[in-house]
Amino acid sequence: MNSKKLIENSCEACHIDAPLVTDQEIIELKPQIPAWEIIDVNNIKRLRCSFAFNAYLEGLNFVSKVAAMAESEDHHPEIILEWGKVTVSWWSHKIKGLHKNDFIAAAKTDSIYSD
Amino acid sequence: MNSKKLIENSCEACHIDAPLVTDQEIIELKPQIPAWEIIDVNNIKRLRCSFAFNAYLEGLNFVSKVAAMAESEDHHPEIILEWGKVTVSWWSHKIKGLHKNDFIAAAKTDSIYSD
Repeated sequence: MNSKKLIENSCEACHIDAPLVTDQEIIELKPQIPAWEIIDVNNIKRLRCSFAFNAYLEGLNFVSKVAAMAESEDHHPEIILEWGKVTVSWWSHKIKGLHKNDFIAAAKTDSIYSD
Repeated sequence: MNSKKLIENSCEACHIDAPLVTDQEIIELKPQIPAWEIIDVNNIKRLRCSFAFNAYLEGLNFVSKVAAMAESEDHHPEIILEWGKVTVSWWSHKIKGLHKNDFIAAAKTDSIYSD
């Protein structure tokens, strides 16, 4: 596994036979995205995190930035915009679970929020 | 009930003691928003509709327009942006169900998609 920080990576093309992250890799990568939880939806693991906003249009602005990043990485999350918060979920549809790409994209999402 | 078309109305301030739409009102209003389904989430009715997009950033553009409308109406839906589609749900949090505002907002959402 590439030992660079997640935020310094780009998502690589994910093929249908790409490997899911192993439990050991999750242990190594998860501390870099501490606010994210790993959830299970229909037996498919996802990374999910909610981000708070005092103003609705600030939330929308965050959605736009995350979506632009997603498009540039060619990896697209579920983004839920509501009053007061935005919830982002990353997973890899093709392999029905978590790929390292998802951890990279989660770290980049955190970075957008921090800015 | 105001007999104007939904699209010609604006959302009115919704108070905690505002009335839920009656079954009769639903029968009258629903034909104006035929693509929307009425779903039940934790015993709270919502109007929900998914809109298809061939390009991710077109979906994002639709999210931005619906969010701008929501802000101007001071009534905020749940908007889910994914690759290929955007799903919008309208309900009235304060009264835990559907108010006429939600039908008005759904009609305006359809109008944004049609444009």
